[in-house]
Amino acid sequence: MGRKIRVAICGYGNLGRGVESEIKKNKDMELVAVFTRRRKACCILMTASDTPLLGTDYIPDWKDKIDVLILCGGSKSDLPAQGPLYAKSFNTVDSFDTHAKIPEYFAAVDEAAKAGGNVSVISVGWDPGLFSLMRLYSGAVLPKGNTYSFWGEGVSQGHSEAIRRIAGVEDAIQYTIPVASAMEKVRAGKNPKLTAREKHQRVCYVVAAKDADTKKIEKSIKTMPDYFADYDTTVHFITYNEFVNEHSKMRHGGNVIHIGRTGDGNKQTMEFSLKLDSNPEFTSSVLIAFARAAFRMAAAGESGARTIFDIPPGLLAANDPMELL
Amino acid sequence: MGRKIRVAICGYGNLGRGVESEIKKNKDMELVAVFTRRRKACCILMTASDTPLLGTDYIPDWKDKIDVLILCGGSKSDLPAQGPLYAKSFNTVDSFDTHAKIPEYFAAVDEAAKAGGNVSVISVGWDPGLFSLMRLYSGAVLPKGNTYSFWGEGVSQGHSEAIRRIAGVEDAIQYTIPVASAMEKVRAGKNPKLTAREKHQRVCYVVAAKDADTKKIEKSIKTMPDYFADYDTTVHFITYNEFVNEHSKMRHGGNVIHIGRTGDGNKQTMEFSLKLDSNPEFTSSVLIAFARAAFRMAAAGESGARTIFDIPPGLLAANDPMELL
Repeated sequence: MGRKIRVAICGYGNLGRGVESEIKKNKDMELVAVFTRRRKACCILMTASDTPLLGTDYIPDWKDKIDVLILCGGSKSDLPAQGPLYAKSFNTVDSFDTHAKIPEYFAAVDEAAKAGGNVSVISVGWDPGLFSLMRLYSGAVLPKGNTYSFWGEGVSQGHSEAIRRIAGVEDAIQYTIPVASAMEKVRAGKNPKLTAREKHQRVCYVVAAKDADTKKIEKSIKTMPDYFADYDTTVHFITYNEFVNEHSKMRHGGNVIHIGRTGDGNKQTMEFSLKLDSNPEFTSSVLIAFARAAFRMAAAGESGARTIFDIPPGLLAANDPMELL
Repeated sequence: MGRKIRVAICGYGNLGRGVESEIKKNKDMELVAVFTRRRKACCILMTASDTPLLGTDYIPDWKDKIDVLILCGGSKSDLPAQGPLYAKSFNTVDSFDTHAKIPEYFAAVDEAAKAGGNVSVISVGWDPGLFSLMRLYSGAVLPKGNTYSFWGEGVSQGHSEAIRRIAGVEDAIQYTIPVASAMEKVRAGKNPKLTAREKHQRVCYVVAAKDADTKKIEKSIKTMPDYFADYDTTVHFITYNEFVNEHSKMRHGGNVIHIGRTGDGNKQTMEFSLKLDSNPEFTSSVLIAFARAAFRMAAAGESGARTIFDIPPGLLAANDPMELL
C-alpha cells in the first residue's frame, strides 16, 4: 500500500462528525481538513481530532492536498449546489437522497466531474445505498418475486422536524416502527399488498410549551398530510428532561425482504437487515468505504458521476478481496 | 433492448436443470443448447424445454451461436478442465467452490479467457458468491467488527456423500443445523469465539442395508475426521420409503452476521440471510444473473476472468438500475 488516502469533510453536522470519528478505523486513510459553512473567520481552529477546521471559502486552496472530499451537507439546500461545484476540483462522495431528483443531480455532477477529471460517487448511504443494492441483487437473481422494504424501528429526522414546526411544540422526535405482522406475512410468502398504514406505525414524543393546547397539537400531527395522516400515529407528551434522557440516540434500521419463486413454486427468501445504534455514524461509515472506491477509480483514470450500482464491490475493501473468496 | 442473450448449459445435473427451468424467467435471455458429457451419440435429442441436448464433443461447433456458456459441472473433476478449455471460445460463468484452489483456477481461466477475448465469471453462487459479497460490504463499511457465517438448516451434499461411502449404507442425507443460541450470542454483540461444534450441529438420516450393523455405521459416521468428529452429530436410521417421502427437497440457507462498533461503542448490525426451498434452483438463478453481466462486459470489450467482487452490480439487472435508486 502506498501513501494514505487524504480525505476532507465538507459539512460539520452529525454526518460530518461521524466521518471524523470513523475514518480512524481505516488505516489506509487520513483526515486532513474539515470545512464548514458556519465558519467565516480566516484563522484556523482545530477539531477534537486535531484536524484543521476552516470555512468552505478555503476549499479551493486545498485542491492538491485532498484525494476525496466527503460532502456531508443536506440534500435539500446544500448538495444541489455543492455537488456540481466541488466535483469540478475534487473526487467527491455524498449521500444525496431526494429520490425524485437523483437523475437530475447525477447529470449535473457527472458533467462537472468529467470536466474536472474527477470521480464523484453520489447517493451513498443505506437507503438509498445498501438497501438499493439488496433490491438490485435480489431482483436480478430472482426476477419472479416481490421485494418489500421496512424501515425502523428508528428516528425519522424529516418527520421529527415536521412536528417541531407546529405552534406550541418545543421539541419532538418521531419513531417509525414496522408492523411485525406485516413482515411475517411477507416472510410467509403471502405476497400481501400493503398500504402505508399496514406497513409502518408512527410514534411521536413531544415536548409542548407551557400553555400549549396539547389536544390541538395532537390533532395537527395526526392529520398532517403525507407525513402522518396515512398512518396509525400515536402521540406522547413528555417533559424536556424525559426527552433529553430517553430520546437522544439516533437509532435506526430496517429490512429488505425479497421472496422469489423457482421451479414448481419453490420459495426462495433473501433478507437483508440493519440494526443501527447510530444512524449518522453508520451512514458516515458507508461514505468512507465509497471514498476509497472513488479514489481508486480516479487513480485508474476514470472520471464522472457514479452510483453504488456502478462500483465493483472489490474497490471498497481495504484488503485484497481475493482473500475473502 | 436488442436481441436476446443466447445461453447454453454445459452439465445436465441438478444445477443444469435449474438453469433450464429458471432462464425462462429472464425475458432478455434464451436457452439455445444443453451439453452433457453423458451423451456421446450424434443425433440430437430435445430436453423437456425443447432445447437441443448434445454431447460435449459438439460444443466447438456452437462457437458463434452462444453468447454465454454456463458451466454446471462439479468443482472437483469437471470445472478444473472445463473452465480453462471453454473460456478460450466462450464467455462462461461457473460456480467453482473449492476455496483453496480458487486463485489457481482464476489464473488458468484468466489466461484462457484473455487469449480468446472472452469474459469468464468464476465462483458464483451463494457461498462462495452472495455470502462473500456480504462479508466484503460489511467488512468494508464497518472495519472494526466481526463477521460470522452460519449455514443451514440445509442439506450438505458433501457430507451426505461421505456417509454413502460407508459399507452397509444404501442411502443417506445430512442436514447442517446452525446452533440458535450461538447466533443469538453473536447478534447480542458478545463477539464470541465459537468452535465448529458450537456453531453447527449435524443430523444424518441413513437407510441401512438389510443385515448391516447399524451401531458400527453410527460409530463410523460420528468419528469420521473433518466431516463429523468435530461436531455434535445425530444419526437416525430410516426406511427407504421414509427417505424418499421426507428427504427429497434440497433445502438450504444461512446467515452472514456482521457486528461492528462505531463512535463510543455504538453497536451496528448488518445481517444477510437466505432461506431456500431449492438450493440448486437458487444457485442456478445466481449463475443466470451473472451470465447477463458476463455478456455485457464482453460486449463492452473486456476480457479475462472475473469474480463477483469485480462486477458492478448494475450489470446484473435486466432493467435500468437508475430506476431502483
